Amino acid sequence: MNSRPSEFSLISKYFAPLSGETGFNFGDDAALLPKLENTRLVITQDAIAETVHFFSDDTPDLIARKAIRVNLSDLAAKGATPRYISLALGLGNTWNEAWVDRFAQGFAADCKTYNLELTGGDTFRTGGGFVISITAMGEIAKDGYVSRLGARVGDVLCVTGTIGDAAIGLHVRQGGLGKLLQSHRQALIDRYLLPQPRTSFAHLIRDHASAAMDISDGLLGDLEKLCAVSRVGCDIRLDDIPLSKALNAAIELESSSLETALSGGDDYEILFTVPEENLKAFDKATSLEDIRISKIGQITSGGPVKVFDTGGEVVEFAKKSYDHCGETP
Amino acid sequence: MNSRPSEFSLISKYFAPLSGETGFNFGDDAALLPKLENTRLVITQDAIAETVHFFSDDTPDLIARKAIRVNLSDLAAKGATPRYISLALGLGNTWNEAWVDRFAQGFAADCKTYNLELTGGDTFRTGGGFVISITAMGEIAKDGYVSRLGARVGDVLCVTGTIGDAAIGLHVRQGGLGKLLQSHRQALIDRYLLPQPRTSFAHLIRDHASAAMDISDGLLGDLEKLCAVSRVGCDIRLDDIPLSKALNAAIELESSSLETALSGGDDYEILFTVPEENLKAFDKATSLEDIRISKIGQITSGGPVKVFDTGGEVVEFAKKSYDHCGETP
Repeated sequence: MNSRPSEFSLISKYFAPLSGETGFNFGDDAALLPKLENTRLVITQDAIAETVHFFSDDTPDLIARKAIRVNLSDLAAKGATPRYISLALGLGNTWNEAWVDRFAQGFAADCKTYNLELTGGDTFRTGGGFVISITAMGEIAKDGYVSRLGARVGDVLCVTGTIGDAAIGLHVRQGGLGKLLQSHRQALIDRYLLPQPRTSFAHLIRDHASAAMDISDGLLGDLEKLCAVSRVGCDIRLDDIPLSKALNAAIELESSSLETALSGGDDYEILFTVPEENLKAFDKATSLEDIRISKIGQITSGGPVKVFDTGGEVVEFAKKSYDHCGETP
Repeated sequence: MNSRPSEFSLISKYFAPLSGETGFNFGDDAALLPKLENTRLVITQDAIAETVHFFSDDTPDLIARKAIRVNLSDLAAKGATPRYISLALGLGNTWNEAWVDRFAQGFAADCKTYNLELTGGDTFRTGGGFVISITAMGEIAKDGYVSRLGARVGDVLCVTGTIGDAAIGLHVRQGGLGKLLQSHRQALIDRYLLPQPRTSFAHLIRDHASAAMDISDGLLGDLEKLCAVSRVGCDIRLDDIPLSKALNAAIELESSSLETALSGGDDYEILFTVPEENLKAFDKATSLEDIRISKIGQITSGGPVKVFDTGGEVVEFAKKSYDHCGETP
């Protein structure tokens, strides 16, 4: 099982079948992006690395899908529909064809799920662990792009889904919270292993939000970044932050899980602001969606982000964000 | 000197200044590509890794510039003018701020040289060595794109510059060819360390070539790839393959250098075909250029690539291509 085919044969066998016209069916070294009439392309690039963003014994198909999905999460938060993807696959020292085969299976599955065309990329040895660097492109109506910069005083702060599951899932994956119910443990680990980008929610961001970003480095830290570039503050209500049953159970066992949940990485939910005047239409539109939306606070003119508890007291957190340069899982 | 700032501060300090409107001055997680009227964008993604594509003690500014240039070489071979770049910077275990500072200096210098806007990216730890993954985009006139697929029987095969210097430069960098003149040694090592993408030649490719690709994995292997996708063969004349003085000196000392030169990686010259009917205009246009162009063969209908020596005999080479999955420098 330790056979090692050449770069050229790996590409031909596993990745060329995922390509199309834009990338000349992998017959060329580059891709020619289409001329779009009424839409534009949004581009993002995010990488994941072994021992930093995933474990060495995670299954390769899940690693592939995670690498794709962290990028699609960025596109969804901008209001864009996924279209193209490019892959620089850095093979770790332990690679063999079986690993690439399973990686390609997961990659192909998500290309199908999200209707992605693979335009090109690169396969190479890293000399160390596996590194997967993906560039994703999405299509968006001409004026549909939603940046982080547009939050205004009075806008309502919302999030999709639930917060903190992946961060606690990582803790569980590392052997923490041994007394937690097995079903809760698995639910949290699944959130860590396989992000669910909010692709189907992109159109609502496009239609109603004034600012949006995906939460990849922790709710509190990412909210601070959004506020900083929008030059606003924000008051949020701790009780309104959506937590899953599994996470609440984790907090009951270890109260420090709350801080980890709000400052840990890998949520891949969308944090966004809706202007008061859009709220009615937004509520109506989201009532038809099969997705949990929570209003957790309001944009203010002053100061940094403040978190209030039930009694109206400000809660302080020591750590607000996950730093991909400083830490390992 | 081992201070380690956060991801956020690294990005703000070193990379945000290289951004512009397209990437919201690094204020957002993605970039919005422009609506182009009469042109289209070409995209390519290539990564380089420590110990595989560069040495651990190469200076970080040269590593940054190499990472950019291997991508610009692809764009040049397609006839495109560089416009945008996106960087996934994977920090190795030995990283410190001084390393990032020097890396960013080289990166900024080449962004200026090639008029590139940094649209976004990612900074992360790899858990192993440094990995730099770059996505580059270039602009091209609507019908200007030149693929590998267009070579036709009778077309003249040409290359820019000289072949094999970087491959032998790598050998010298590893302590080989100790008896070679110091000036020759340095010239070869320089070609290995800092590719010179043929950006200024892109317009001639666009105007005259039927097929083109950059030579990154060795002349003979890359020519076979071009012929395979164009479904043609090629006869080339060994004596007409352009070699530098330094390389000829290396071959005199070690005759095996010739095979290494023709099959080694990192040339970053352009291999292209010119239809007979374009030759006159091509010759006239290139006579004004400050770049060496060599006609080395002709596209045929049959079989694989054949190399002929002065006496008209076919020369066989054991190895034709550099494989980035199988080997280390």
